[in-house]
Amino acid sequence: MLLESIREELRAIVGEKNCLDKQEALVAYSYDATPMQQALPDVVVLPKSTAEVQQVMRVAARHHIPIVTRGAGSNLCGGTIPVGGGIVLVLGRMNQILEIDEQNLTITVQPGVRTVDIHQAVEALGLFYPPDPGSMVISTIGGNIALNSGGLRGLKYGTTKDYVLGLEAVLPNGEVIRTGGKLMKDVAGYDLTKLLVGSEGTLAIITEAILKLIPKPQTQRVMLAMFADMAQAARSVSDIIANRIIPGTLEFLDQGTIRVVEDFKQIGLPTDVAAILLIGQDGEPQTVDRDMEQIAAICQKNDAVQIKVATTAEEADEVMTARRSALAALSRMRPTTILEDATVPRAAIAPMVAAIQEITDRYGLQICTFGHAGDGNLHPTCMTDARNTEEIERVEHAFEEIFTAAIDLGGTITGEHGVGIVKAPYLEWKVGAAGMEVMKGIKHAFDPHNLLNPDKMFAKQSRNRVVVQRA
Amino acid sequence: MLLESIREELRAIVGEKNCLDKQEALVAYSYDATPMQQALPDVVVLPKSTAEVQQVMRVAARHHIPIVTRGAGSNLCGGTIPVGGGIVLVLGRMNQILEIDEQNLTITVQPGVRTVDIHQAVEALGLFYPPDPGSMVISTIGGNIALNSGGLRGLKYGTTKDYVLGLEAVLPNGEVIRTGGKLMKDVAGYDLTKLLVGSEGTLAIITEAILKLIPKPQTQRVMLAMFADMAQAARSVSDIIANRIIPGTLEFLDQGTIRVVEDFKQIGLPTDVAAILLIGQDGEPQTVDRDMEQIAAICQKNDAVQIKVATTAEEADEVMTARRSALAALSRMRPTTILEDATVPRAAIAPMVAAIQEITDRYGLQICTFGHAGDGNLHPTCMTDARNTEEIERVEHAFEEIFTAAIDLGGTITGEHGVGIVKAPYLEWKVGAAGMEVMKGIKHAFDPHNLLNPDKMFAKQSRNRVVVQRA
Repeated sequence: MLLESIREELRAIVGEKNCLDKQEALVAYSYDATPMQQALPDVVVLPKSTAEVQQVMRVAARHHIPIVTRGAGSNLCGGTIPVGGGIVLVLGRMNQILEIDEQNLTITVQPGVRTVDIHQAVEALGLFYPPDPGSMVISTIGGNIALNSGGLRGLKYGTTKDYVLGLEAVLPNGEVIRTGGKLMKDVAGYDLTKLLVGSEGTLAIITEAILKLIPKPQTQRVMLAMFADMAQAARSVSDIIANRIIPGTLEFLDQGTIRVVEDFKQIGLPTDVAAILLIGQDGEPQTVDRDMEQIAAICQKNDAVQIKVATTAEEADEVMTARRSALAALSRMRPTTILEDATVPRAAIAPMVAAIQEITDRYGLQICTFGHAGDGNLHPTCMTDARNTEEIERVEHAFEEIFTAAIDLGGTITGEHGVGIVKAPYLEWKVGAAGMEVMKGIKHAFDPHNLLNPDKMFAKQSRNRVVVQRA
Repeated sequence: MLLESIREELRAIVGEKNCLDKQEALVAYSYDATPMQQALPDVVVLPKSTAEVQQVMRVAARHHIPIVTRGAGSNLCGGTIPVGGGIVLVLGRMNQILEIDEQNLTITVQPGVRTVDIHQAVEALGLFYPPDPGSMVISTIGGNIALNSGGLRGLKYGTTKDYVLGLEAVLPNGEVIRTGGKLMKDVAGYDLTKLLVGSEGTLAIITEAILKLIPKPQTQRVMLAMFADMAQAARSVSDIIANRIIPGTLEFLDQGTIRVVEDFKQIGLPTDVAAILLIGQDGEPQTVDRDMEQIAAICQKNDAVQIKVATTAEEADEVMTARRSALAALSRMRPTTILEDATVPRAAIAPMVAAIQEITDRYGLQICTFGHAGDGNLHPTCMTDARNTEEIERVEHAFEEIFTAAIDLGGTITGEHGVGIVKAPYLEWKVGAAGMEVMKGIKHAFDPHNLLNPDKMFAKQSRNRVVVQRA
């Protein structure tokens, strides 16, 4: 419980109506999109400016109160759960697009701007901001930056990190730093910009960002290729890249996912195939046409059962919407949906999917897999029930084995969702004890009193790595 | 002076002939490509493996001896001068390309591989590693990574940082960390990969790198556009970008540079124009042709005196070689050449060039400017004489004013050369006192005993910022 005097300090900064401590408000900010994670904050504060953020930070520092910064709370790693209580700092009121600079091809935004609003604002000018996380219709850019969000265009265009050129951020001591700028080249000191991207609100509070834009691709086309066998789909992915084609989108859905998506959206997906690749290309019309032809030929050569090229924009939209609705479709199946994002080098997708299947069967679970085949970022998704503690224990063990399999294949425990609470016990598996020490040192350098998003990224206890004796 | 017993420890690790302490060897490693910087090391050590680097690091840690890591020493910021003596660790023997992975589009290299050898190895397979720093024929990839080297293709393709996916590095405590991997997406913890890129050998010793490759562009074409007036050239750059064309190369030479390059290479550049833009595009043949036509029309509209499109590969080579020889040409003029790299947002090139001109005239100096117009990275280059202390003092003041002008235009003190010794006194101008504190904290977290490349990046004393009263 915060002292009333501290609440008064906070109210004096942001105003009465932007400092919430009624039970219903505390409950509303006690969870995010992550299943099975909840904790009540002591107070919810909604600042309107960098200056207000600084003042709130100084109050928190003076009284040693933790601050959990959040936008829409659409993250899937428990990244904005206020596990230690304290202040939830909601940046939704800092939601202005400050400038679109058409000469330098940049957009300057406050953290509370929705990702989709950035897309629409720049596309109206013939420009393009490529990162398109699954949550982009509700997620805010501040959250995307904090988690280095990915999306469907990662293979060709990279992720959020590749588009952040400069940041303004409030440090735990209340001071403001400005990193980078409208600059394609800047090597003045350590790259604090890229360090803050993906730092999950543990190092500083991002209050403004300069993002890079590129010209909008002229055309985009999309096709579906269906396979009776997972290995054929994986080989097609490899062959496309080996042919020096980098598609704008290269998505994968397994049979389980296809079935629930079709049940949900009814767009005529064949429910008897083992895998579907959704392949999109964008760019100059003639290049796109040529790439699409070559891709179709490659899929054919790998015995695709069927290839369906979207011929109209509506058809293309329908296909993309089907993919984007995979999580929603899977969520309808059972009370609890756990979406993971173990990631492997692209060439290791087939063995990774096989490993997931084997683990799923062995633990007697329902796990469907879809994701970004082009960049090896898979989303094994478990449909379960949080109330069934015995089953949840099996789910946990299964995912531990999935993380182990990913690492053994040269991959990582999280490709785009972040560490937060849920992956924290496994971070050491990927980065090693020496890597953990370095990361803790960085955290300490920024935030010596552990005020910003405590207990995220660094677990009180790491899990022991599963040693599996495979036949 | 190092104790003989320590030398013996080092000899036991790398062998007698890879541990040099004769005067001529110490002198050979007392300088790099930076003018007016020199300091003798105590010993030069050439390890062959990560294990040997670890052992050397442990010896250095035990006896508190500084280590300056270097490759070819082609940097321009005094980044590899052993100012505090100690060990110069030369990674030239760790020069193997370990793997080219055509499925994952990656190359894995040791730090001593020359940049140009990476280009040639991957281009032979139809792949492409875009970063092309001016020094690429002699520079090593380890040095490129340590300094986040840029080059002529920065605007379209980014810099070294954009291509480093994973690193192996030896920490000051002798432990090895492995960051990232063959992964397009990886958000497991803080991004140590991007933090180490550009850290100038102050945080860890990079012993291996995984680099991203892309398909090699099918064609490339290049043109020269000559202008009687700098403002016309700058407007052409802005108009090209405003037309949503991102050229592969967009270089600028001022009249002074044109004259010395022509004198050096005799390729028929008109020496009476105020500015030349060298504009290249690469990609699909039809796209390149269309872009080149549009670019020519834009330059024409901005009153280009002459436009010359290279029609053969030889002509194109000649033009690119002329640009790449700018530094060599300027270096012939006077005993000392100081090449700077103040960088501004692209749209601020015209005022920046004007500011450089005004400052040059006011101080009565010879400064020619060329550089990467597309990404605002200019190279004002001063021809002077290090023996003339009065003139050198004027040079120093002029460059301080140039840095100030760049920062006032939203730019930075260094776009691609790094901080090293020479920019260290000015780093605070760009990143602020709070930024300096954060960077020092990061340095301390990695290297608490300040063993790795001490006195680089962090100056004992920051310069006071020049306050110029402009009319």
